[in-house]
Amino acid sequence: MNIIDNLTANFSKFPGIGKKSASRMVYYLLNTPESFNLQLAQQIADLKRLIKRCDKCFAFTEESPCPICSDSSRDSSLICVVEQPSDVKIIESTGSFKGLYHVLNGTISPLEGRSPDSLTIRQLIARISADRPDEIILALNPTVEGDTTALYLTQLIKPLGIKVSKLASGLPVGGDIEYADSLTISKSLNGRIDC
Amino acid sequence: MNIIDNLTANFSKFPGIGKKSASRMVYYLLNTPESFNLQLAQQIADLKRLIKRCDKCFAFTEESPCPICSDSSRDSSLICVVEQPSDVKIIESTGSFKGLYHVLNGTISPLEGRSPDSLTIRQLIARISADRPDEIILALNPTVEGDTTALYLTQLIKPLGIKVSKLASGLPVGGDIEYADSLTISKSLNGRIDC
Repeated sequence: MNIIDNLTANFSKFPGIGKKSASRMVYYLLNTPESFNLQLAQQIADLKRLIKRCDKCFAFTEESPCPICSDSSRDSSLICVVEQPSDVKIIESTGSFKGLYHVLNGTISPLEGRSPDSLTIRQLIARISADRPDEIILALNPTVEGDTTALYLTQLIKPLGIKVSKLASGLPVGGDIEYADSLTISKSLNGRIDC
Repeated sequence: MNIIDNLTANFSKFPGIGKKSASRMVYYLLNTPESFNLQLAQQIADLKRLIKRCDKCFAFTEESPCPICSDSSRDSSLICVVEQPSDVKIIESTGSFKGLYHVLNGTISPLEGRSPDSLTIRQLIARISADRPDEIILALNPTVEGDTTALYLTQLIKPLGIKVSKLASGLPVGGDIEYADSLTISKSLNGRIDC
């Protein structure tokens, strides 16, 4: 095993990167200016040292509290609960949400041994009790685990007198009814909107 | 721009890696043990320092001459000419070739300003004149540039009294005639094999 093989093997550990893509990445690096490779290496080496979790919302950040939590122009009466730190970036990129976030760090899944205690649910409840937001938006994935976690959170938060909502299920924009699965169609029928 | 955005931007420069894949790669690194990240960073930083071109065949190697050129069990009467160093690895992985290689470093392309002098053609001719192999196999891509380069090389090498061949064109194994383009089908008709 030389360094080309070792680096190919490491690149192919990334999600969605197969052996061929990994090999193309290594040959790309062999043709780039050395300065690019050294900068990339430095960024990878620094990544985990520079990035920590925000003490308040648990998103990845260079400084805690994160830029979103410390932005006083954002609407602190809305907290959007997401599964992963990467979900924050995805929702931010839509530009349609101006409230705060809370990263759960996963979902409840008894089958895979993930109990409520392994998530940041305790911290979410403490945050709700202290800050008294108007509404909690559950932006969890529309999966069995996501729905289970949403149900669990609803039962915890509603008794505190706080409104709880979740993302609408339905047809993706630009999608085609012909190709939508029947569960999605029935959800979009049940959740139909007045025109 | 924080380090997550910078690293995402750099990963998305790789061939075949879009912005979403790059972002997934960064979040993957945020969840891996730091030792993996440091090892990966070290490999990327070392890559161009450790890898050079083989003086004989111009493939990427840690030591020159490369392991293939210095392997006396290989058949030195056959030289397979390829466009890129990565092509050596691809042909090696088939296990069906036991001769030596010569990396051209591209193709002749007047339109893109790549003349024969920018390739390792001079070195190939010198090598053929010195080592007198029995056959040169042109394993160039079946593109206009690849075919042009193959024609140019044939006209240079044949007068030296050396056999020149090129890879067969035809239907890919496991392919379907229905989905093959007409040029491929006519090439496979003209190159039909006795059964």
